[in-house]
Amino acid sequence: MPLLLMHSPPPPPPTPDDLARWHAADASARPLRVARLRERLAAEGIDAYFGVGRENSRYLAGFDLAEGEEKVAGDSGRFFVSADEVVVLADNRYLDQARVECAPARIEDCYGQLAERWPALLRSLRPVGPGGTPGRRRRVRRVAVEATHLSHALWTALAAAEPGVELVAAGAWVEELRAIKEPAEIERIAAACGVADAALDRLVREVRAGMTERELALRLEWDMRTNGAEAVAFDVTCLSGPRSALPHGTPGERRVAKGEALLFDFGAQVAGYRSDMTRTFFVGEPSGPHLRLYLLIQAAQEDAFQALSRASATREIPTGPELDDVARRVVAGAGFGERFGHGLGHGVGLATHERPFLGKRAAPVTLPTPSVFSVEPGVYLPGEVGVRIEDLIHFDVDRGIADRLTQFTRELTVLGG
Amino acid sequence: MPLLLMHSPPPPPPTPDDLARWHAADASARPLRVARLRERLAAEGIDAYFGVGRENSRYLAGFDLAEGEEKVAGDSGRFFVSADEVVVLADNRYLDQARVECAPARIEDCYGQLAERWPALLRSLRPVGPGGTPGRRRRVRRVAVEATHLSHALWTALAAAEPGVELVAAGAWVEELRAIKEPAEIERIAAACGVADAALDRLVREVRAGMTERELALRLEWDMRTNGAEAVAFDVTCLSGPRSALPHGTPGERRVAKGEALLFDFGAQVAGYRSDMTRTFFVGEPSGPHLRLYLLIQAAQEDAFQALSRASATREIPTGPELDDVARRVVAGAGFGERFGHGLGHGVGLATHERPFLGKRAAPVTLPTPSVFSVEPGVYLPGEVGVRIEDLIHFDVDRGIADRLTQFTRELTVLGG
Repeated sequence: MPLLLMHSPPPPPPTPDDLARWHAADASARPLRVARLRERLAAEGIDAYFGVGRENSRYLAGFDLAEGEEKVAGDSGRFFVSADEVVVLADNRYLDQARVECAPARIEDCYGQLAERWPALLRSLRPVGPGGTPGRRRRVRRVAVEATHLSHALWTALAAAEPGVELVAAGAWVEELRAIKEPAEIERIAAACGVADAALDRLVREVRAGMTERELALRLEWDMRTNGAEAVAFDVTCLSGPRSALPHGTPGERRVAKGEALLFDFGAQVAGYRSDMTRTFFVGEPSGPHLRLYLLIQAAQEDAFQALSRASATREIPTGPELDDVARRVVAGAGFGERFGHGLGHGVGLATHERPFLGKRAAPVTLPTPSVFSVEPGVYLPGEVGVRIEDLIHFDVDRGIADRLTQFTRELTVLGG
Repeated sequence: MPLLLMHSPPPPPPTPDDLARWHAADASARPLRVARLRERLAAEGIDAYFGVGRENSRYLAGFDLAEGEEKVAGDSGRFFVSADEVVVLADNRYLDQARVECAPARIEDCYGQLAERWPALLRSLRPVGPGGTPGRRRRVRRVAVEATHLSHALWTALAAAEPGVELVAAGAWVEELRAIKEPAEIERIAAACGVADAALDRLVREVRAGMTERELALRLEWDMRTNGAEAVAFDVTCLSGPRSALPHGTPGERRVAKGEALLFDFGAQVAGYRSDMTRTFFVGEPSGPHLRLYLLIQAAQEDAFQALSRASATREIPTGPELDDVARRVVAGAGFGERFGHGLGHGVGLATHERPFLGKRAAPVTLPTPSVFSVEPGVYLPGEVGVRIEDLIHFDVDRGIADRLTQFTRELTVLGG
């Protein structure tokens, strides 16, 4: 008897045409993104920006590093934004890549000697003036640096290399820009959701008691990576039985048994953009208490989603903590408030975790729009069971949109025991 | 006709008994590693050490984060070494893990409020005294911090949180300890080499013209991860034809054709420790010039290896730059000196790239022993072909050892065209 797991067929994997279209969209969007940053720099009294983070480099300069590759790439991909240029550093391993990906940026060959080259690089930059336009001054005096990404050791070396230029810890200016998603960004997140949905749909039909967490996680990863994902968004989580109660856990050699919960938390990456979803299944019939926990989390997730639907119609946008509270009240109302120990969700894009953050303690600001973020309430009974349901939501108040990008069913699903 | 690709059969994949033995070896080695660090702290006039790097945390505290996981783990795994304790920070997602992996360390629950907790944490530490023993003073005054791993933003916040305690950028003290390998560390690197050797041995028998780089890279990764590797050491590189000349390159949709070079650079991870190897094949008969390039690099690699063999017998240990020069002279003697644009090799262990570094510009200090490092000369003719051969070497002068841990053949190998 076939399971009915998808609300609609998953989108086909991205085609070469899709990839080319997204690449072109990025290239044409980058000047606008950079212009917005320049306006912010002008407002903050900053002459130039030195970017360090992998995702910010991809977003503003177009330089594409794999997750973790920044640890071995040296200064490659680090970049300046000045009044009239984007300047990208690359060592000889990455020069060709930078020339292709970052055009029309100026590329500077820099191999492990950033501090030595720092004064000359700064002298080559034209300071941002009023409104983000080129100013009259010749020399950069105040440079904003991504201090949350740059090591203290390198900061110290740069400050010493050119004492006449003040280094200022940059605010989350680029991260705030990234929270507002462009159409071609949303398309890619939706495509990544589709790859993940389709892979899970194929996998769950084969789940049987006795399979190990690690085997299931590997199969899911393999399916995504051979069916449209350029990478996984993060290491696949697959936890069975009482291990599903671990809010963090690595798939191990444990074999799933009949009557147990089986939790998958995973995502795909398509053309740089990521998805993130969680489903909790039962292998064979669940116990009554586990069934009720599932229905509770399903209701909490649906309530948060309905709140977003109403907001997209009324244009009364909630803050992250307010939306968190909608789901948390449902869980707390059933007496499990203490067992929902994490925030309701987070933005997703070039990074798996980015703005906006939806939690009790998140900044009480209205949600950005258009944006994409997860809604993922959970409940964890240590040593017994955990249930979490996570979808990505596309939220766009101006267009009256609050859509789930994750298509996989949220109904209680019992897998072959 | 079967190929003869291995000098000896690859070791079998690690067993659960191996994993248990290595785990126990680490647990008993950690107090000694920590004692050596305390001696260094005493010599440097430092009261306590604050560790941030993923590999250093695994080495000294036992905390096991996957590559890249430190980006989402918050302060989890960061640790102090004081006169009489190791103190490991973990948020609630990681508390159970820390208790299991880091025993008998003190575990401190810390969720995103490190700066707030910093003064009290420092007050709880006993300063290191002469020779690394507990000193007489009550309060920590100077703390060494891993400034190459800590962000400038967090350094600033910690310095402001307790102005009475001086933060000092730590030297590479732990990294220098890690360069000297214990027997159970070498065993794991050898096991990771075995997993990689065996996977390549299986793959190359199936290589045919028309296969894509990406397909071959995925197959190799999959084989390792289902035959003993807990992870890949880094994303598998597979480059064909003129792309083999890219010193850095990502496997793409290019199909390998007859007569072309096919370069694999990859490694496995076993119980935290990594391997790293490169082989360059030809799919069908190579041209005469390509054949000569291969033999040149093979000779350069062998000369460097022979220099290590002699050193292990004579106990005249070369420096990294001296060993680099042995191989570089061979390449330069054939007129390709300018086409060997990277260093000869690097240490391998918990990280893929660690001390010692073997390059022209590396520190002119004698190689550590016992140690494990790569020897990987290469030559790159842009737009035409690249050849690199990389083995890991176990070097132990006291025991007269200079062994290749990589068993796969270095002889010119022509794959099915």
